[in-house]
Amino acid sequence: MSASTTSESAPGWVRALDLLRSRGPLVDCITNTVVQQITANALLAAGASPAMVDHPDEVETFAAVADGLLVNLGTIAPHQVIAMPRAARAAGAAGVPWVLDPVAVGALPVRTQLAHDLLALRPAAVRANASEILALAGSGAGGRGADTTSGPEAAIQAAGDLARTTGGVVAVSGERDLVVSAGRSTWVRGGSPVLTLVTGTGCALGALTAALLGAVRHEDTVGSGDGPTPTGPSPHDAVIAAHALVAAAGSRAAEVGAGPGSFAVAWLDALGSLRPDEVAAAVGVEEL
Amino acid sequence: MSASTTSESAPGWVRALDLLRSRGPLVDCITNTVVQQITANALLAAGASPAMVDHPDEVETFAAVADGLLVNLGTIAPHQVIAMPRAARAAGAAGVPWVLDPVAVGALPVRTQLAHDLLALRPAAVRANASEILALAGSGAGGRGADTTSGPEAAIQAAGDLARTTGGVVAVSGERDLVVSAGRSTWVRGGSPVLTLVTGTGCALGALTAALLGAVRHEDTVGSGDGPTPTGPSPHDAVIAAHALVAAAGSRAAEVGAGPGSFAVAWLDALGSLRPDEVAAAVGVEEL
Amino acid sequence: MSASTTSESAPGWVRALDLLRSRGPLVDCITNTVVQQITANALLAAGASPAMVDHPDEVETFAAVADGLLVNLGTIAPHQVIAMPRAARAAGAAGVPWVLDPVAVGALPVRTQLAHDLLALRPAAVRANASEILALAGSGAGGRGADTTSGPEAAIQAAGDLARTTGGVVAVSGERDLVVSAGRSTWVRGGSPVLTLVTGTGCALGALTAALLGAVRHEDTVGSGDGPTPTGPSPHDAVIAAHALVAAAGSRAAEVGAGPGSFAVAWLDALGSLRPDEVAAAVGVEEL
Repeated sequence: MSASTTSESAPGWVRALDLLRSRGPLVDCITNTVVQQITANALLAAGASPAMVDHPDEVETFAAVADGLLVNLGTIAPHQVIAMPRAARAAGAAGVPWVLDPVAVGALPVRTQLAHDLLALRPAAVRANASEILALAGSGAGGRGADTTSGPEAAIQAAGDLARTTGGVVAVSGERDLVVSAGRSTWVRGGSPVLTLVTGTGCALGALTAALLGAVRHEDTVGSGDGPTPTGPSPHDAVIAAHALVAAAGSRAAEVGAGPGSFAVAWLDALGSLRPDEVAAAVGVEEL
Repeated sequence: MSASTTSESAPGWVRALDLLRSRGPLVDCITNTVVQQITANALLAAGASPAMVDHPDEVETFAAVADGLLVNLGTIAPHQVIAMPRAARAAGAAGVPWVLDPVAVGALPVRTQLAHDLLALRPAAVRANASEILALAGSGAGGRGADTTSGPEAAIQAAGDLARTTGGVVAVSGERDLVVSAGRSTWVRGGSPVLTLVTGTGCALGALTAALLGAVRHEDTVGSGDGPTPTGPSPHDAVIAAHALVAAAGSRAAEVGAGPGSFAVAWLDALGSLRPDEVAAAVGVEEL
Repeated sequence: MSASTTSESAPGWVRALDLLRSRGPLVDCITNTVVQQITANALLAAGASPAMVDHPDEVETFAAVADGLLVNLGTIAPHQVIAMPRAARAAGAAGVPWVLDPVAVGALPVRTQLAHDLLALRPAAVRANASEILALAGSGAGGRGADTTSGPEAAIQAAGDLARTTGGVVAVSGERDLVVSAGRSTWVRGGSPVLTLVTGTGCALGALTAALLGAVRHEDTVGSGDGPTPTGPSPHDAVIAAHALVAAAGSRAAEVGAGPGSFAVAWLDALGSLRPDEVAAAVGVEEL
C-alpha cells in the first residue's frame, strides 16, 4: 500500500502501526463530550482522521463510509442512545469494524441496558477496565463511574467469555493490559500511572483501537477467493498495537515529568512522533 | 483516615486540603460541555475522582453514591435541564453536598428559572461571580453570559441573603473571592488575572468546591450521638480551601508566564503538586 | 474607541485586529462539542469574550445582544438543529454579524439541509474548506467528514457564487486561504501544516471570524446619515484579519516544533501575544 519502515518479519502488531500511518483511517467516534477533544487530537497525532458525527439521522450514512467506529458510553446524551445501535448496525452491515467502550456498565441503568444491546450486535472489539468487563460478562456489579476496583487478572475468564460471545477481540485495561480473542491471549506491559490522571486517555485508546482495526481490516482477507489467507496483521494484532502505542507514548510523556497538564501535552507529542520500532522497544508484549 | 502532612493546629481550610488528597472524593459534574475536559483534569490533578453522568434516568442513582455533585448551568442541553433538579434532589436526600454554579443567571430565561428552582432545593454551596449572585438574590439583572460587571464587594449583602435562604455557603469570585455562610465571612486573596483568559477555571473551581465539600462531609458531625461536635473542617472551610487551591495554582502558573495556553498546562500541573502548606503560603485568607 | 497601536495608514485588515483588542466583542458560538474548549480559549486569547449558549429557548435573546455569532455544524445535537436557525434569524434582525461553518455539508443529510436553510438567512460570512464550499454552492458532493479533497483554487467560482447569494463574505481555507466578496478577492498565505493536526483550529477560525466581524461592525457605516461612508475596516477586512491571525499564530507555534500537543499550547500563546504588526509581518496578503 505504501512504503513501510518496518521489516516484514516484525510482529503483526508492529506492522499494524505502519498501516495506521500509511492508510490514515477515518474513524467516527460516538463518544462522551468530556473526552472528544483529546480523542480527536490523539487520532490526528497518530495519523488517523477523526469525526464525531452522532446525530441519529446521520450515523448510518457515516458509519458505512468510515474505516472504523467507536461507541463509548461515558456520557450518553439521549440522541446518542438512539444513534449508537443504528451506527453499530450500519457499521456491521458494511464490514466496518467497531469498538464498544462500555464506560460504567453495571453501575447505572440506561448504559447497562444499552451496553448489552450493543454487545448483541457483536463489536469487533470491546475495550474496558476489569470492573466493566466483569459487569458486561455478568460476573460483577461494575465500579463507580469510570473507576475500577479490580485488575485485569480478575477478568481473564470474563474476557474470554465475551470474546466467545462476540467472536471479536476483548481488551482489559489496567496496570498491564490484556488482549483476548479466540485461541489467543496477550499481555501488554508499559505506560505510566500518570495516564490515569489525564481524562480521556482510556477513551482515546478505544478510538485508537478502532483506528487500528480500520487500518488492518482488509489485510487478513487477502486471497479470500481461495479461502481467507491471513497474511497481514489480524484484528487481535490491531488491538495490541493500539494498547502498545498508548502505553509507549505514556512512557515517553512520563519522562517530561512535570505534572498531569504537561504530561497530556507530551503524550500527544509522543503519539505523533513514535515510530513503530520505538513503540516496540518501549513496551512488553507477551503471549500467554 | 490517612496520614496527614498537615498539623492539627493548621486552619480548618488547610486541613480540608489534606482530606481531599486522602479521601479522593467521587464528584459527579452536570456541567457545560465547554469545560468538561479541564474540569475533569482539575479534579484528577487535585486528587478527586470525576464523573460527568448527566442522563436524566441515571443521575439520581449516581448522585446518591457520589461524594459530591456539581450543577453548572453554562450550556444547558435540554436533557440536562431535566437531569439537574433530579440529581440535586437525590443528592440532598442522600446527604451528598452539591454545588450550584448559576452561569449567566438573570440574563437568559431558561437558566434563570432553572437556577431559582435549584436554589429552592438548597445547595450546600453556591459559586458564582458578583453579577450572578446579585441576579440570583434578586438584586440585579445579571451580566452578559459569563461576564461580570461588578466586583464581589458589591455582592456582600446579596451573598448573605442567599446564604440565609439556602442554609449553606455562598462564594463570590472576583479579583479576591468572598465566602459567606451563617455567622462567617471570609476573603480569599491570590491567583492571577490570567485565570480569566482560560476557559473553565471558574467552572472547575465549582467542581473543586464540590470535591472539598465531599472530602469534609463526615467531619463536622463527628460525635453527633451526643449532639454534633464540629471537630473537623466545616463546609465553609471546604469552600475556602477550593478557592485557595485554585488561586495558589494560578499564582504558581503565572510564574511560567508565556501565555494562556502555557498557563493552563502549568495550572493543572500546580493543582497536582501543591501541598496544603504551599497553598497556605501562596494566598491570603482573612476573616471579616 | 481606544488607543490604537496601529498606524491609520495600515491596511484595513490590520486595523481590524486593533479593534478586536480594543472592543473585546462578545461572541456566541453554537458549535460542535469537540472544539468548544479550544474555540473559547482562542477567543479569550485573542481578546474576545466567548459564550456557548445553544438552548433553543435562549439563543434568540442572546444572539441579539452579542457582537457576533458562530453557527458551526460539526456535531449537531438535535437541540442545536432547532437553535441554529433561530439564532441566525435573531442575529440578522438585530444587525449582529454571524458566520456559517458548514462542516461536512454535502456528505450527510441533516446538516446538508440545515446548511442550505441557514445559507438562505444570509450569513455575513461563510467559512469552510473547498469541498464544503463546492457542496454548498451545488458544485460538489462534499468530503468525508471534515476532510477536504480539493484546494481553494478549485472553489474560486463557487465562492464567488456563494458571495453573490448571501451578499456577504466567503472564505475558503486551505494551504493558502481565499477570501471573496462582491468585487474583491484576496489570498492569505502563511500558517503551518501542523494546524491540521490539532482539532478545532479551523472551527476556532470561524469563531475568530465572527469576533472580527463584531469588532468592525459599526465601522463601515460611520456617517451613514449622509449615506454610508466606509472609513474603517470592512467585513472583508475582518475576515482577512481572522485568517491572518490564525495563520501567523500557526507560524509562531511551528517554531516550537515538538509535536501537535505542544503546538496547540504555543498556538494559544501566540494568539494572545501577537501584535497586529507582527501578524502582518508573518503572513502574505495579496489582492487578486
